[in-house]
Amino acid sequence: MTDHPSRTLAAFAATLDYRAIPAHVVERTVNLYVDWLGSALGGKGARPVETIARFARTARGAQSASDACDVVIDRTRTTPYFAAMINGAASHFVEQDDVHNGSVLHPATVVFPVTLALAQSLGASGAEFIAASVAGYEVGIRVGEFMGRSHYKIFHTTGTVGTIAAAAAAGRLLKLTPGQMLDAFGSAGTQASGLWEFLRDAADSKQLHTAMAAANGLMAAQLAADGFRGAQRILEGAQGMAAGMSSDADPAKLVDRLGERWATVETSFKYHAACRHTHPAADALLAVMAEHRLTPADIAAVTAHVHQGAIDVLGNVVVPSTVHQAKFNMGTVLGLCAYRGYAGVNEFEHGYAEADIAAFRERVTMALDEEVDRAYPARWIGKVTVTTHDGRTLHGRVDEPKGDPGNTLSRDEIASKFVRLAAFSHAASEAQARALLDDAWAIAECARVGALFEHGETKAAA
Amino acid sequence: MTDHPSRTLAAFAATLDYRAIPAHVVERTVNLYVDWLGSALGGKGARPVETIARFARTARGAQSASDACDVVIDRTRTTPYFAAMINGAASHFVEQDDVHNGSVLHPATVVFPVTLALAQSLGASGAEFIAASVAGYEVGIRVGEFMGRSHYKIFHTTGTVGTIAAAAAAGRLLKLTPGQMLDAFGSAGTQASGLWEFLRDAADSKQLHTAMAAANGLMAAQLAADGFRGAQRILEGAQGMAAGMSSDADPAKLVDRLGERWATVETSFKYHAACRHTHPAADALLAVMAEHRLTPADIAAVTAHVHQGAIDVLGNVVVPSTVHQAKFNMGTVLGLCAYRGYAGVNEFEHGYAEADIAAFRERVTMALDEEVDRAYPARWIGKVTVTTHDGRTLHGRVDEPKGDPGNTLSRDEIASKFVRLAAFSHAASEAQARALLDDAWAIAECARVGALFEHGETKAAA
Repeated sequence: MTDHPSRTLAAFAATLDYRAIPAHVVERTVNLYVDWLGSALGGKGARPVETIARFARTARGAQSASDACDVVIDRTRTTPYFAAMINGAASHFVEQDDVHNGSVLHPATVVFPVTLALAQSLGASGAEFIAASVAGYEVGIRVGEFMGRSHYKIFHTTGTVGTIAAAAAAGRLLKLTPGQMLDAFGSAGTQASGLWEFLRDAADSKQLHTAMAAANGLMAAQLAADGFRGAQRILEGAQGMAAGMSSDADPAKLVDRLGERWATVETSFKYHAACRHTHPAADALLAVMAEHRLTPADIAAVTAHVHQGAIDVLGNVVVPSTVHQAKFNMGTVLGLCAYRGYAGVNEFEHGYAEADIAAFRERVTMALDEEVDRAYPARWIGKVTVTTHDGRTLHGRVDEPKGDPGNTLSRDEIASKFVRLAAFSHAASEAQARALLDDAWAIAECARVGALFEHGETKAAA
Repeated sequence: MTDHPSRTLAAFAATLDYRAIPAHVVERTVNLYVDWLGSALGGKGARPVETIARFARTARGAQSASDACDVVIDRTRTTPYFAAMINGAASHFVEQDDVHNGSVLHPATVVFPVTLALAQSLGASGAEFIAASVAGYEVGIRVGEFMGRSHYKIFHTTGTVGTIAAAAAAGRLLKLTPGQMLDAFGSAGTQASGLWEFLRDAADSKQLHTAMAAANGLMAAQLAADGFRGAQRILEGAQGMAAGMSSDADPAKLVDRLGERWATVETSFKYHAACRHTHPAADALLAVMAEHRLTPADIAAVTAHVHQGAIDVLGNVVVPSTVHQAKFNMGTVLGLCAYRGYAGVNEFEHGYAEADIAAFRERVTMALDEEVDRAYPARWIGKVTVTTHDGRTLHGRVDEPKGDPGNTLSRDEIASKFVRLAAFSHAASEAQARALLDDAWAIAECARVGALFEHGETKAAA
């Protein structure tokens, strides 16, 4: 291992060439981008998101005709800094954005707000956009792994480490030299912040964390491009991030198989809009229903075979009285899957308390399963046993929940999720969403990343 | 002690009434403001400061005719957010801004950028400006004391805690309710950042820390005014600032004699522009020279009787080759005091290597002094022994260095420092500086805090 791993990592990010990125990584990055854009649309109208957007307008105080960067939730345009801030706030709200299990980082919500805004501002190519986004993912995931589990106990890694990911992504689009990229890491890392304390009060800080990780990371890269110097070992130094905010940091993880291991494709999509502990059973139920062509009316009872963590987290809510509680109730999630085929934001918002779902909920129980529990958390196995009204006992199983790297979403599934999120928040009609999708799927090939909303349905439709 | 000290502190800040602040505290706060304004002017032209100013202009992308907030270094106007950011960067650069010894916080550079900008934007009265500034000082100093010595080892307290001080000051001007003020603390504290790692590389992060502490604190208060919720125990909670960034935090310090102890007046002014370890001896030399009407030519040798820390920090530089090194050289500092009467930024910039100063430097030695060492760090006693060419041995002594609370600067001394700093950075002519001073001394009485630069010498003079 190098004796200056943050320099090695910075050099990797600064020099990452689009042509060196394998085709399957590029393709997955496009998928992650489309998935992110859906999440950003889904944040429209959410109080904390709109509050940050109002702040950004106040802080700016004026618009300019040269503004090039789309604010996804309202189709206005602004500068890269404020676009990163608002889109960063928007894309984490519905909790449908991607996650990397090992680093506990949500990369999309801090990387794409930056790469989209800067690419629009610079007129960068799709290839540059992809290379910068991959740089952000590869750096952010490794820094998250480096900071370790002790960090995540107190700090919201997507806020802290996300700042470095955003700086790497921005720095790559700004064509920083390796030395400047290290400066950008320094200015980003010394701004790294985000505490879990807000969870206790259900406060709004999560949106602030992603907004400012994106904005501060962008700022750090822009400052570095203008000669502003940062600490050279902000990650591993004696008074750096790990020294101040981790007790189990491992510098070797910063440079783990750079250019060989593509951590980007290890990222999981979130399929259902429910607590992640429900996903394996939900997918197992959908599998057994498909295999045996069951309708919900055929089902007399379901046992979800789960790990202990699922019982700990999900066991408390018996009859959910809010959307949020419903997302943590196994019976509701399985009911939505059985009746609606999917437990998405719309299904929860409009259906969690309906009679068929509530009745199905009563037919669901959880049971600790030794195999599932042993495999967790490395693997999230889904197992259900279904008893039918006609007396059959049927078993459903998935070895990885839908969206995990080994069971990733198809482009059709990503598109469906996208359209649903846009409809949920009233950010776009289905036709508008389809038009956005057409462009988004083609982003890697475009000569110049342009405006999102140019389909004759721009601001007036918002 | 309350079981929710951060709520008590927030309520104090939100409800602090100008009429409840003793007259001597108001007077000292005006002095601290004037001292701050001089430091902000002194930052003009410094590369890291100007880089942050360029970033702010890029991030904003447009000006507006309704901009009300002065950027001190270039007399442009902008929004409160960017004025706080740029003036926060500017006012810490020359290292002449104030410091509170017990909390190791530099309050002025994070409080006044916010209160000046917001007061200008809101058209607030001078009384409101003073009350908000005192709220920022009282809160920031107590939070700094709360976070303890362990925090300061890794984190730059003026960056981290400064965010809370800025939020308190902004929140008071925005007339937040106590509940909203607690929300503002939450959003500020979850953004608290600033690592000492940059010192190792002499990187530019110090300006970034003060810029963003001011801007993020302002943001937190503006968000709270708009209903954005923050963690209710961001300071003392199980996943809050102290949990993540301190091992010796003491919550009792958060509410130490609120409304009785005025921590604001415990703040020290920096008089000489040198390393603080030189100040006691410098003042003792000036005292003995004044008492015996000595000229520099009378002096054959000086022994500075110092604490061990001074020897540790100052002992390495024998012949300084840069301005920065000169500020850490006892002989140079005493030479500047002897010949120029003051060791300020101009004296260092233009005189540290001149023949008379260099010759005087050779006549200075340091010696460990038991009394001085025992009193440190609670008291910084200054003692020198001077031998004259005509054979006398004379002793000089000060019990507190100039600028400390027991030996605070007079308004004339603050004004002189102000004019010198403005001249040093070419931010204002002496006449312009005097006009700025006239307004600044009267700020507590003004009905409405207006523009700084309205003396027929505004932007064209910049």
